[in-house]
Amino acid sequence: MIVITSNKAPEEQIQEIVRVIEKEGLQAHVSRGTDRTVIGLIGKAEPKLAEHLRQMKGVENVVKITKSYKLASRDFHPENTVININGVSIGGDELVVMGGPCAVESASQIDEIAALVKAAGGQVLRGGAFKPRTGPYSFQGIGVEGLIMMAEAGKKHGLLTITEVMTPEYVDICAEYADILQVGTRNMQNFDLLRKLGTCGKPVLLKRGFSATYDEFLNAAEYILAGGNPNVMLCERGIRTFETYTRNTLDLAAIPVLQELSHLPVISDPSHGTGRRELVEPMAKASVAAGASGLIIEMHTDPDNSMTGDGVQSLFPDQFAHLLKDLEKLAPIVGKRFDTAKAPAESFPH
Amino acid sequence: MIVITSNKAPEEQIQEIVRVIEKEGLQAHVSRGTDRTVIGLIGKAEPKLAEHLRQMKGVENVVKITKSYKLASRDFHPENTVININGVSIGGDELVVMGGPCAVESASQIDEIAALVKAAGGQVLRGGAFKPRTGPYSFQGIGVEGLIMMAEAGKKHGLLTITEVMTPEYVDICAEYADILQVGTRNMQNFDLLRKLGTCGKPVLLKRGFSATYDEFLNAAEYILAGGNPNVMLCERGIRTFETYTRNTLDLAAIPVLQELSHLPVISDPSHGTGRRELVEPMAKASVAAGASGLIIEMHTDPDNSMTGDGVQSLFPDQFAHLLKDLEKLAPIVGKRFDTAKAPAESFPH
Amino acid sequence: MIVITSNKAPEEQIQEIVRVIEKEGLQAHVSRGTDRTVIGLIGKAEPKLAEHLRQMKGVENVVKITKSYKLASRDFHPENTVININGVSIGGDELVVMGGPCAVESASQIDEIAALVKAAGGQVLRGGAFKPRTGPYSFQGIGVEGLIMMAEAGKKHGLLTITEVMTPEYVDICAEYADILQVGTRNMQNFDLLRKLGTCGKPVLLKRGFSATYDEFLNAAEYILAGGNPNVMLCERGIRTFETYTRNTLDLAAIPVLQELSHLPVISDPSHGTGRRELVEPMAKASVAAGASGLIIEMHTDPDNSMTGDGVQSLFPDQFAHLLKDLEKLAPIVGKRFDTAKAPAESFPH
Amino acid sequence: MIVITSNKAPEEQIQEIVRVIEKEGLQAHVSRGTDRTVIGLIGKAEPKLAEHLRQMKGVENVVKITKSYKLASRDFHPENTVININGVSIGGDELVVMGGPCAVESASQIDEIAALVKAAGGQVLRGGAFKPRTGPYSFQGIGVEGLIMMAEAGKKHGLLTITEVMTPEYVDICAEYADILQVGTRNMQNFDLLRKLGTCGKPVLLKRGFSATYDEFLNAAEYILAGGNPNVMLCERGIRTFETYTRNTLDLAAIPVLQELSHLPVISDPSHGTGRRELVEPMAKASVAAGASGLIIEMHTDPDNSMTGDGVQSLFPDQFAHLLKDLEKLAPIVGKRFDTAKAPAESFPH
Repeated sequence: MIVITSNKAPEEQIQEIVRVIEKEGLQAHVSRGTDRTVIGLIGKAEPKLAEHLRQMKGVENVVKITKSYKLASRDFHPENTVININGVSIGGDELVVMGGPCAVESASQIDEIAALVKAAGGQVLRGGAFKPRTGPYSFQGIGVEGLIMMAEAGKKHGLLTITEVMTPEYVDICAEYADILQVGTRNMQNFDLLRKLGTCGKPVLLKRGFSATYDEFLNAAEYILAGGNPNVMLCERGIRTFETYTRNTLDLAAIPVLQELSHLPVISDPSHGTGRRELVEPMAKASVAAGASGLIIEMHTDPDNSMTGDGVQSLFPDQFAHLLKDLEKLAPIVGKRFDTAKAPAESFPH
Repeated sequence: MIVITSNKAPEEQIQEIVRVIEKEGLQAHVSRGTDRTVIGLIGKAEPKLAEHLRQMKGVENVVKITKSYKLASRDFHPENTVININGVSIGGDELVVMGGPCAVESASQIDEIAALVKAAGGQVLRGGAFKPRTGPYSFQGIGVEGLIMMAEAGKKHGLLTITEVMTPEYVDICAEYADILQVGTRNMQNFDLLRKLGTCGKPVLLKRGFSATYDEFLNAAEYILAGGNPNVMLCERGIRTFETYTRNTLDLAAIPVLQELSHLPVISDPSHGTGRRELVEPMAKASVAAGASGLIIEMHTDPDNSMTGDGVQSLFPDQFAHLLKDLEKLAPIVGKRFDTAKAPAESFPH
Repeated sequence: MIVITSNKAPEEQIQEIVRVIEKEGLQAHVSRGTDRTVIGLIGKAEPKLAEHLRQMKGVENVVKITKSYKLASRDFHPENTVININGVSIGGDELVVMGGPCAVESASQIDEIAALVKAAGGQVLRGGAFKPRTGPYSFQGIGVEGLIMMAEAGKKHGLLTITEVMTPEYVDICAEYADILQVGTRNMQNFDLLRKLGTCGKPVLLKRGFSATYDEFLNAAEYILAGGNPNVMLCERGIRTFETYTRNTLDLAAIPVLQELSHLPVISDPSHGTGRRELVEPMAKASVAAGASGLIIEMHTDPDNSMTGDGVQSLFPDQFAHLLKDLEKLAPIVGKRFDTAKAPAESFPH
Repeated sequence: MIVITSNKAPEEQIQEIVRVIEKEGLQAHVSRGTDRTVIGLIGKAEPKLAEHLRQMKGVENVVKITKSYKLASRDFHPENTVININGVSIGGDELVVMGGPCAVESASQIDEIAALVKAAGGQVLRGGAFKPRTGPYSFQGIGVEGLIMMAEAGKKHGLLTITEVMTPEYVDICAEYADILQVGTRNMQNFDLLRKLGTCGKPVLLKRGFSATYDEFLNAAEYILAGGNPNVMLCERGIRTFETYTRNTLDLAAIPVLQELSHLPVISDPSHGTGRRELVEPMAKASVAAGASGLIIEMHTDPDNSMTGDGVQSLFPDQFAHLLKDLEKLAPIVGKRFDTAKAPAESFPH
């Protein structure tokens, strides 16, 4: 159930509504828009409460929400969520590009790539220290050491960092070193991990399960939000279909659909979404045209020798730079801004 | 097997190569590029023929093609196929927009919509006279009468026309009235229909079967090409996946993939690809950003009362016009041109 | 809408109900059960007609049918459809096995295989004279000649015959030579073909489209039934999923689901459903355990050299015979009978 | 790489082979068959090691394994794995039926259902204490209390128990109270959980991810096996496809496929595999006919009021008992035994 206040309802009316809700043992989730405020109720409300609220001062309407997710829903939170991290804002009119290797391999590798991401105009450095692998005998990432190397490279080159966390016990250390924590596609319904991320204090990029519906995806986000962490980004990274020429089928309709159902920023991953280097550029552009708030793209200086074997979907540095130049022209057409010529930051505090 | 000639091989060398091929009982399919000519062999070649050809004058290389389709393959025909119809060129640098209702309902309806398509800057009028329907009791289209109404509307407003043909016996009459014949998704592997279209003398827009792989799609095109009709457009219109929020999952990676594998123009259908009006605009833009040569879009003046019940995916005329204005800005970013302000043609001969 | 008569309603009451329905310009479809008769109305009924019928003598209930298919629905026709062809009954308690090669290759091949099918206890000889092929350069079947060879082999060995028909223009000649006409998976929504089969006078085995929902499948059957042909069998032959180890995913739940929704016999095709010889036997047994009325199985005397390349899914003759022995034991467990030791018929008239 | 010994190679030869392998820093995994022994090498072997092994006494052949999983592969372990737990053997010729509610709701509920499972002839009691739920506001199970209730009911009625474990930190307590630990479909690639189960000392039933390929499924099993736990059962529980009439598409071909690729017992779950009560019986029979070693089936005394809302797929007790009677007749047809009339054990030690 949500309460929609009347236009410019005064603060004391809003507070009184909240008091009434909380007296019933429910939580009130307040979302302030420019004109109206939306107050969401979490918990099981008695029917007569709706009646009571409807008659209060400052209430324009009381609406029952039938979706299973609440906090993730645009009904609950009509305005876009914009996540600000050290001057980079995700979910607003800035286009955000996250680039980097599949896995952190060495300090020099991640430093070199960070410099290239920064020079090309990217804002976030990606890189895996812990790698989820189909089989137990594959390279599983270099671990905490990799986290530290990436944090240093990010700091040196003035980039935010994002890395995947695979298990609740590593959330704290990942949160210590990275600016954004990523949940991989296989872990989208690892509910304990999601709950732990609800209290980690860092923004989370949640990748869509490779066979998850939009509804399941938003319910997974709800686990993190319900834990108290409002800074969740949704990432479309391709779904599993009958077509095997591409590694996955990048479902770009997910971008406007998720933006309609939810207020959370939507990021696209054309690297995993296609699994083929030559498709990354057209699908990156298509993602931005479809309204994505950002992109996460694999780039490697020596993709043929990458330690994960995912090099086949990594761009070469010059392809990455060239793509970002094109995005700079494309972004304004769809109401975004992206500037590849920003003076490189020296470094910024983490 | 294909023969690649040396740079600027003289015509008599090319003719001699063709003669040798034909003497073996094979067909030679000649595709002239700016520098080199590619001669494709159709039929089963003896291994020693490859040896013989390789030693001929003017031959740079002889390559075995392992794909099951030949004429549709970019190996066989390295340059883009550009289809010119009455001054509209499809597959080159012009962006082509086809718009109109799901079904032709009356002369006044199609005339009114044609005027709107033209005014918005579209080049082709779409409309169904014969409708494929899941069940036998649904509206099946108004038939030949509809063809005539649409042809008149197209002529009057200076638009090309495209309509679906469902069965071999209607190919001739559809080819008489329409400029482009469309094969629907359910008929992508109706091989008799494809064979008949190979000799119909009109360009064909072939829609991808809703569960067809790229390979099957190109093999279906091959049936038309093998019949002697080189003017085939490939249309991505969404595939069937586990996600049911959208009617289909529009597979935009199909656009660059098909352009890599084939030389045929690729068109996108964001209306059937999403089945939801509000998704047509972002997915139309994404299609163009991904490199599509054109779009086919449903537009209706009264979608809620459309005879097919497909109104839910039709744009209103003002949305259509607004989208085309946006495409005008987007097209140049990806190397295409699209001009909504072209002086409306009076009418042109069909 | 359907009218359900009261227990043992006399014939004149039934006739009067039919008269009232037809006076409204609707068709009445009468389905007599042991106790009650169900009269289905086809066409758009006025609401007051339901009221009127409900008050007539002999009417127990009037029910609105919301499914898009009517004649195929079990609501319309509560008793199982049993199709009798020359002493073989399909859809009752007899288990029917159809066996034979993917394609008829020669008179001696089909004669030899027919003898083996008969000896093993099969009742129907399968074989393709017209083959639907993904690409235009593959072997397309030997055509009418093949039809004749198969008809002769069937007659000689006392087997019914089934063959695929791909296009409306070949329906008549296929109906002349074969006992059952098969619609292939790619043609499930070839509506013109379905309409033509509605008047062909021979039973039809309709294969499920490889990505067709149950609803679409039953609507396709409805096209044939609506044309006047009540003898339709539904064949589950595997659907396309993300799993590629098997050629298709045989959806055995389709068997009880279709039996619940419809009265038509359900046949299973474990050969195409798996695409691997070693899986045919367990999936044939599973099909029977799930309640299938019959099986259609590929068997070949020299699968490695079959002309279609589908040999990899064909059983060897001894495997086929062995499987039928096992089915003989399994059938009674699920209320079916199957007898491999029936005295081979000399021949029977077609 | 695997080493296959010659027929009846003496023990000292086998030991010598193992010594050579271990000297290279590799693990040797010995699997003894009736005639031959297969020794699997885990780790990266130098090519010259293969050469050396091939020339040793007692070695018949050295074969390179190209599959990414080793211990789960039938190449490595040619004989079926049979898991014996308190007199119940899984993976041999005994058919094992696991029955019970979706969730443990109370001591009396699980006691009542346990009595019914036992009386019907089932060997294992299933019930969830921790429930994975799509959204955070759904009932999540009653936790450890439920584990204890189920353990008591199992002991009292002489049934083994199986319960789902969702996170590494609960593995130990689940292993304390339950006989078999279950990994749910959403956790199939929760690699930390799999690793922890590798050392838990109890047999594990691993459910296939709802969009996992056979290869990914076996690799997930490999994680558990590689941790030192050889007692893994594979459970087919339906995959996600385009068909939504059933909750999932039960892929019964998985049963013979997994038995061919692996030596691990394969269990079928027709409850989640269909999501509809009326389909459980035919699909349970089909599973046994396809060769399943066991079934896991939901049964509830009051399914309409089950706490998870999954009652729609639960059998009523009489349906469960009736199904097991039918399985008793079916099992011998496919070489299994199942006896519903075994004298109910008083209780047995856990």
